[in-house]
Amino acid sequence: MSEVLSKVLDLAKRRGIFWPSYEIYGGVAGFYDIGPIGTKIKNKIVELWRKYFIKDNSDFVVEIETPIIGPSKVFEASGHVESFTDPIVECNSCKRIYRADHLIEDILKKSVEGLKPEELTRIIKENNIRCPSCGGELGEVRLFNLLFSTNIGPYTGNLGYLRPETAQGMFTAFKRVYEVSRQKLPIGIAQVGRVARNEISPRQGLIRMREFTIMEIEFFIDPEDKDDIPLFKFSDYKLNILTAEDKLKNGKPREFKVDEIVKERIVIHPWMAYWMAVAAKFVRALGIDNFYFEEKLPHERAHYSKQTFDQIVIIGDIRVEISGHAYRGDYDLSRHMQYSGQDQTIFRKYSEPKIVKKKTLVINNTKLRDKELRKKIMELINNKKIEEIETMIKANLTIDNQPLSEFVSIIEREEKVHGEHIIPHVIEPSFGVERALFLTILNAYREKEGRTILSLPKYLSPYDVAVFPLLEREELIKKAREIRDSLSVKYDVLYDEVGSIGRRYARADEIGVPFAITVDPQSLLDNTVTIRDRDSWRQIRVNIDSIDVTLEKLFRGEDLNKIGIEVKNEDEQ
Amino acid sequence: MSEVLSKVLDLAKRRGIFWPSYEIYGGVAGFYDIGPIGTKIKNKIVELWRKYFIKDNSDFVVEIETPIIGPSKVFEASGHVESFTDPIVECNSCKRIYRADHLIEDILKKSVEGLKPEELTRIIKENNIRCPSCGGELGEVRLFNLLFSTNIGPYTGNLGYLRPETAQGMFTAFKRVYEVSRQKLPIGIAQVGRVARNEISPRQGLIRMREFTIMEIEFFIDPEDKDDIPLFKFSDYKLNILTAEDKLKNGKPREFKVDEIVKERIVIHPWMAYWMAVAAKFVRALGIDNFYFEEKLPHERAHYSKQTFDQIVIIGDIRVEISGHAYRGDYDLSRHMQYSGQDQTIFRKYSEPKIVKKKTLVINNTKLRDKELRKKIMELINNKKIEEIETMIKANLTIDNQPLSEFVSIIEREEKVHGEHIIPHVIEPSFGVERALFLTILNAYREKEGRTILSLPKYLSPYDVAVFPLLEREELIKKAREIRDSLSVKYDVLYDEVGSIGRRYARADEIGVPFAITVDPQSLLDNTVTIRDRDSWRQIRVNIDSIDVTLEKLFRGEDLNKIGIEVKNEDEQ
Repeated sequence: MSEVLSKVLDLAKRRGIFWPSYEIYGGVAGFYDIGPIGTKIKNKIVELWRKYFIKDNSDFVVEIETPIIGPSKVFEASGHVESFTDPIVECNSCKRIYRADHLIEDILKKSVEGLKPEELTRIIKENNIRCPSCGGELGEVRLFNLLFSTNIGPYTGNLGYLRPETAQGMFTAFKRVYEVSRQKLPIGIAQVGRVARNEISPRQGLIRMREFTIMEIEFFIDPEDKDDIPLFKFSDYKLNILTAEDKLKNGKPREFKVDEIVKERIVIHPWMAYWMAVAAKFVRALGIDNFYFEEKLPHERAHYSKQTFDQIVIIGDIRVEISGHAYRGDYDLSRHMQYSGQDQTIFRKYSEPKIVKKKTLVINNTKLRDKELRKKIMELINNKKIEEIETMIKANLTIDNQPLSEFVSIIEREEKVHGEHIIPHVIEPSFGVERALFLTILNAYREKEGRTILSLPKYLSPYDVAVFPLLEREELIKKAREIRDSLSVKYDVLYDEVGSIGRRYARADEIGVPFAITVDPQSLLDNTVTIRDRDSWRQIRVNIDSIDVTLEKLFRGEDLNKIGIEVKNEDEQ
Repeated sequence: MSEVLSKVLDLAKRRGIFWPSYEIYGGVAGFYDIGPIGTKIKNKIVELWRKYFIKDNSDFVVEIETPIIGPSKVFEASGHVESFTDPIVECNSCKRIYRADHLIEDILKKSVEGLKPEELTRIIKENNIRCPSCGGELGEVRLFNLLFSTNIGPYTGNLGYLRPETAQGMFTAFKRVYEVSRQKLPIGIAQVGRVARNEISPRQGLIRMREFTIMEIEFFIDPEDKDDIPLFKFSDYKLNILTAEDKLKNGKPREFKVDEIVKERIVIHPWMAYWMAVAAKFVRALGIDNFYFEEKLPHERAHYSKQTFDQIVIIGDIRVEISGHAYRGDYDLSRHMQYSGQDQTIFRKYSEPKIVKKKTLVINNTKLRDKELRKKIMELINNKKIEEIETMIKANLTIDNQPLSEFVSIIEREEKVHGEHIIPHVIEPSFGVERALFLTILNAYREKEGRTILSLPKYLSPYDVAVFPLLEREELIKKAREIRDSLSVKYDVLYDEVGSIGRRYARADEIGVPFAITVDPQSLLDNTVTIRDRDSWRQIRVNIDSIDVTLEKLFRGEDLNKIGIEVKNEDEQ
């Protein structure tokens, strides 16, 4: 683990951002508590996502909430019971279980993602890979299903699973949401909620957890409708993309304008490019600028996906997927239609009715009064396509020495058709919240003169502003509390009166509070306070009555030094 | 089911507030989807709760998030593995399973809450209660555990449970939260999150679900510290309370001032009254005025509770518990201390150090050089309390004919003690979010001239305002969209241009949008629009430039008619 990573984990624990759950019981791998400071930042990240993905697209995106527990049938239909697996291998001696592909990758330093269990077993044997713990021989690689299972209700045998993604809740509710919403495509169904994946070897930190929060959209489109997509929002916006083709040639990510991504058919559908651009804007809003989109190769993709791009964030020597963009096509709705027997199509209305020629079978009943003959004819044509019957007629087939055409004929009629039933296709941009939280914090981590600063974007800080009395003196405390109370109407205020001012500044810096207001003895003389900037540690002195207008300027991004007169900072130490 | 209840369930489904989950698979009892409109209202209810319970108490309440899945040990410690059960009874013929107490209550119309399985079996036999479905004989009543269970990780036998309340996450993290927060009592740890209870017979609607969202606080106090509780916030605030004593006498709820509740010792600790008052204010903010607090009798309380008040809401003929207020004492922290072996105490500092006389045993080693003698003496005093040894000395006990006092003596020293270790006590105010959503909607349901109005408090409406062009005419649509865009910066706007205006008003009323702005042909002549009030259906006409200031007044609660000139409403139909 890199040094900065271990420092961030330490900071997170020390300052209440996150820590391993159930610590008093020795912890359980893959479960984390989000602490008081972490919850504030996390909630702000979720609200920011809602702004970019839902509110800014409120013409066609709605948010719903569906359960975590679902009946087995749903996950049989979704393919997860069959395909949501990872390869595991058990040590024959000590019985420890490893994730086979990760074990091989760690030892051989090459990717084996997506290989079959037999191939992994072969690689283990050929390379004589043994149990890292006891040196024992490893068994055959087999697949382990990552769904947490449970039983629903008091009757045994009512198998249920915890959802591994929120998506199936949107698919099973698609028709109802479609009915109660705009009743036309495109329609996006968003959800923020918990999911659970019974990972074999969860990683330290918030990167691979057994339970976490997803924010995702299932975006239902007509696959043939590629017009009126508001890509103009992103004209001149550029994305770094590593295409599958470039990847196979060991190429690097290349820069594309959003409309180039569409024109060069890098994405299956233009809406993919739209949501990737939204994701890029959102990740930049988290303060993270260094990322690219990597197309997955066919064997690396999930079972439901026709095309997937991972948004990969680079922070120092760490590369982590912050979002996934899957073109799920009609896979899920088709499967649910098949498994539930319920229609999942919607009606695509033609811009103008089409005239369609339609062949119809006409049975000449007057010539079929004889029961035996009728039976023979019906047996012949039953379950046959109209084209087959036509072929038989044309071939002059006879029944009891009479031509088939005596009894049945095919006529062609013109019909006016107003539209057709289609299964919508689905594009899915998906973020893990805790991952986004972790990467935002890792990215904001700074050191300055041996001290830690969490240089978060101001709108993601757990508190907008800190208010401190310089000393534990009654008059200073009184004034500081007054300022705290008046600011609390508009801002989330951290108030602290205990300990040295240097320590309090340091604590505020460590959790990323952008500005600190200090009431000192001079405040009592001339009604002024100091305002200190988290990142530069510079301070200005302003009148108490102008705190509000000063903060407004600072939150708009104006430079501290242009707002007030800098004062010497004697308090840091 | 009452008529209004069935109308609300129908409205909820039709307008996307909530509906049974997995409908295409026939549904699974106890699981509900919250639809687009429901999610908007629900999120606003959660934010309102955060305001009343967390933000307004930010000096001593923090919010965290902990996992839904926990290892079995946690729920053994919490007592849920043993005690979180409901009585069930199976039909010997058709094998259907019923919740025994509910079955008896439905048939005999009397409460049997909290009775033991043997007692319930006896009542069933004595009253010859048979299977309501097939008339068959019922078996013995037994206890069914309501925890959903699962297996954590790839090794079998790692039993885990889904939490039935968020509380245990706060208890297991208590020490860490205490450390990273204010490091003194009281401290409240709040959480909003999903929980799961494997109910035997979930009820229709959102009242008894198998998976739902809880918002609760575990409020850690020093049980002896009853000062400095900010009850002054609620001076003159009154609560209706049905005490256990009154209940046993078939009495009715009585009105108490908040400080009377404390003075008359109706609650174990004054902080109970504080949080009940906060709950009362919050429920009033949901628009619900008719409620009281009912004290549970000892056998009705959960296993961890020393005192519980349910906040019961009355809407028409429906009575539902909207919140629970439990005094959990030191039950949970003591149990976790016992099961984890980790210290869960905190240090109670005395206001000034106490001088404590402490007895110490002194061994006269110079007289104990003889090994045999030393052994005898040590065996005698080992594992004895100092008081016992003192008694032996005073009784002139001899060892080898020498007095014990020759070898050991007791001296008394004075010690300065700064405090002591205590296990905090816990008060828990707890709300079910979906229940609150359901009751808020049920309470807001109105009918007027055969049409439905959801008369929600304005700040809980799914949209702040609707904007409609009167007709599907290009100029009207253009102007309406301009107004929509400019209002969207500040408000959540519902925009709809399809269908008759009467229908659109009706749809907006049904989901509770408080105001509707309509652009009509006159708008193009004199730059005015109409603003319509949801509840009275009255309309005023205002200049487009003054929409913003008018809405501000309306949201402040000013009367529509005092703001503008009422216009005749020709559009309703």
